[in-house]
Amino acid sequence: MSGWGKISDIVGPSNVVRDADGMSPYLIDDRKLYEGDAAAVVRPGTTQEVAAVVGVCADLGWPVVPVGGNTGQVGGAVPRGGPGTVVLSTERLNRIHRIDPDEMVAVAGAGVILSDLQQAAAAEGCFYPVSLGSEGTCRVGGNVSTNAGGINVLRYGNTRDQVLGLEVVLPDGRIWNGLRTLRKDNTGYALKHLFIGAEGTLGIVTAAALKLYPQSLAVGTAFAAVQDPAAAVALLRALRAQLGDCITAYELLPRIALEFGIRHIGPIREPFEERFDWHVLVEAGDADATERLEAALAAAAEDGLLLDAVVAQTGAQRADLWKLREIGAGGHQYRAGALIKHDISVPVGRVPEMIARGTAAVHAALPGTHVIAFGHVGDGNLHYNLVQPDGHDPADFRARTAAMNRIIHDLVAELGGSISAEHGIGLLKREELAVYADPVELDLMHRVKSVLDPQGLMNPGKILMDRGTAS
Amino acid sequence: MSGWGKISDIVGPSNVVRDADGMSPYLIDDRKLYEGDAAAVVRPGTTQEVAAVVGVCADLGWPVVPVGGNTGQVGGAVPRGGPGTVVLSTERLNRIHRIDPDEMVAVAGAGVILSDLQQAAAAEGCFYPVSLGSEGTCRVGGNVSTNAGGINVLRYGNTRDQVLGLEVVLPDGRIWNGLRTLRKDNTGYALKHLFIGAEGTLGIVTAAALKLYPQSLAVGTAFAAVQDPAAAVALLRALRAQLGDCITAYELLPRIALEFGIRHIGPIREPFEERFDWHVLVEAGDADATERLEAALAAAAEDGLLLDAVVAQTGAQRADLWKLREIGAGGHQYRAGALIKHDISVPVGRVPEMIARGTAAVHAALPGTHVIAFGHVGDGNLHYNLVQPDGHDPADFRARTAAMNRIIHDLVAELGGSISAEHGIGLLKREELAVYADPVELDLMHRVKSVLDPQGLMNPGKILMDRGTAS
Repeated sequence: MSGWGKISDIVGPSNVVRDADGMSPYLIDDRKLYEGDAAAVVRPGTTQEVAAVVGVCADLGWPVVPVGGNTGQVGGAVPRGGPGTVVLSTERLNRIHRIDPDEMVAVAGAGVILSDLQQAAAAEGCFYPVSLGSEGTCRVGGNVSTNAGGINVLRYGNTRDQVLGLEVVLPDGRIWNGLRTLRKDNTGYALKHLFIGAEGTLGIVTAAALKLYPQSLAVGTAFAAVQDPAAAVALLRALRAQLGDCITAYELLPRIALEFGIRHIGPIREPFEERFDWHVLVEAGDADATERLEAALAAAAEDGLLLDAVVAQTGAQRADLWKLREIGAGGHQYRAGALIKHDISVPVGRVPEMIARGTAAVHAALPGTHVIAFGHVGDGNLHYNLVQPDGHDPADFRARTAAMNRIIHDLVAELGGSISAEHGIGLLKREELAVYADPVELDLMHRVKSVLDPQGLMNPGKILMDRGTAS
Repeated sequence: MSGWGKISDIVGPSNVVRDADGMSPYLIDDRKLYEGDAAAVVRPGTTQEVAAVVGVCADLGWPVVPVGGNTGQVGGAVPRGGPGTVVLSTERLNRIHRIDPDEMVAVAGAGVILSDLQQAAAAEGCFYPVSLGSEGTCRVGGNVSTNAGGINVLRYGNTRDQVLGLEVVLPDGRIWNGLRTLRKDNTGYALKHLFIGAEGTLGIVTAAALKLYPQSLAVGTAFAAVQDPAAAVALLRALRAQLGDCITAYELLPRIALEFGIRHIGPIREPFEERFDWHVLVEAGDADATERLEAALAAAAEDGLLLDAVVAQTGAQRADLWKLREIGAGGHQYRAGALIKHDISVPVGRVPEMIARGTAAVHAALPGTHVIAFGHVGDGNLHYNLVQPDGHDPADFRARTAAMNRIIHDLVAELGGSISAEHGIGLLKREELAVYADPVELDLMHRVKSVLDPQGLMNPGKILMDRGTAS
């Protein structure tokens, strides 16, 4: 029997898609940066089916590219394996196996949509903290494989920190059943951490056991204007001294991000009469969070750490403040023409320097470029977007991508930062990783890849470049 | 030049110990279960010296066994490498490189003693949460290499959760500089997690960048009597509903643990007039923690979840309550004769079953055996100690170790638990790991070991058995 016959027997003919129209949504990434090519899209319904399909592919030497919600920002799920490549979609592994409020554990298939998991946890009085823009579309397996971050990392960590156990189909088709729900387990090497954030290059995550948390007793949300990024960092320190570690989100939002929103979306409701250059959105989760946040902000105002502040008193006001953050993150920035994005992190104390020096260097390279650096400043993570100068030729600006990357990433490296804070490497940053990663570190990664996927069939070409081509 | 000449040149003659008296403290473990043999103890003073020494050993095929405070509970630092084995002590890498209260980061050499790190963090207004019995002796490198747990895991996680970055000397003598301090970094495989908990079998941790936290605004400590372990689990859930996630410790303490303390140490001050069979020590860290804990316990009492409770009102009272916990953990249990220890975890909801069924099975095997199961029940982690029946022959009891392990660990496996929650595998549990670990998981571990340490020179014989001898 042919490979396709075997795979069709395993998953059923309706779950093997080989026509161009059916395959097309799986061949292009969310940002439309990359287009790939595949021989088929296969949609297994169980872990055993995944294992059987991967086993067939391993026997035949067919590359396998796993995909979840296909919301990644670095082209990690675009099939670039060459002829015979099988895109393996986890979308049918969408069962929440259990939510256990005693253990504070959720066990979910890789295909469960993040917001479905959040809601299932909430229905049992629990909280699953991973939250990001694409949560209505992205899937748990993709969250795990990209170590997804988002807005609650400051308090709860990223996806890696939530994973208690994993079930993984290995490149040879074996199943590793590491789906433990234990809080403590020191029995040898921490294999799960190899697969978390590996972007499907070492195996396919089919299910995850995840930590849940008590729901916050109350949530307090505030929006404050500050003098500059240095003041934002100082304010964070002051608030922590007052509030302990219950601050869940601390987001930086520059004036320019709001201006772009106004320009492309229309008028927005701002909380202050006066116009300030820098703002932070702060959220805290704890008993009396609103009152405590008010008191802490009042004390910070007396110490001259902020210019103005408003604390949400209703759910609607809270939503309005988050709306400002959403506008700041806006996809509408594309409407201004060409856009070069970076997702970087530096030590928190270096954020002001990263913004000031990066902006100056970008302006020196191309005056008029709009620098929109915003985001999870409490984690040192900035989405460092560059929008083309008004009236500039978009194609010319796009052609400067490599040069702009060099400016931003050289500075990141100098400041001890990361060229990919939360989006991963995928296709987009593999050349950059080859430039910036310590050669010893790259060698270790290649060794791990070679021993777990000796045929090199799992999501080929992602994260690591071929040794021959790495600079 | 001979290998010893080279090593002596690297670290200086006074840091190469080859006489029996000088080496003896390094050749035996804390529990006196194992004795090893080595050609020398070498004490490098810098990472570069560690790398140079390991490089010499790699060239000559000499095994290297790293040791920190030598406080491990599973014989992980006992040299069992055969002729030529070099014990590499990290004790001179004892510099705290920095404590940064803005970044909330500590960077420490592997040889820094845990309590020194705690105190240095506190002096800067920060909190380093890893806390365990041996904290005055154990060292950061050992904490990392064993993924040390302790009393604050419930709220803060174990050592793994604190590690932002590592510096590691690899088995071939190269240095991996992964000493980053970033909260977010998604640039390829998470190599640091390979070395955390690897017990020195993949390389030598020479320094760690660790998370710090805000100090708790206040600490509330209570001691409650409960009907049984099931009530202890129910009370934890009720307290979480009232207190959110600010509970930092939740320790189970049976009557028998206190009775052994009284028998071997003398009278102890107990908080209740009445004698109860089961107790929990609860600690919460938050503003108004004492008042909130009082209110939550009062509500739990009304719901019949506890029999009596006392909340510390002073630091002295708090210390008295922790003293009870210390007595429960007591090394004095050895004074009753032979002792068989287990360090297991199960899902929190299965703790009552683990205690009831394990006790019954042990009593069926040898009536009169004292079962002292206590510890970090909030994490599902029990120290499940078996003390010989009164008047029994200690040698006979010790000879039953394998049989008792089988009883306890079979039950652990049935309940989805771990045979080593926080102590690791070392020499003590490698046969047990070979029995209980999924063969796929063992194969993955062997593959990782083979590619990172192809000569098999790093801490030989720990965690994994030779493939030929594994059952």
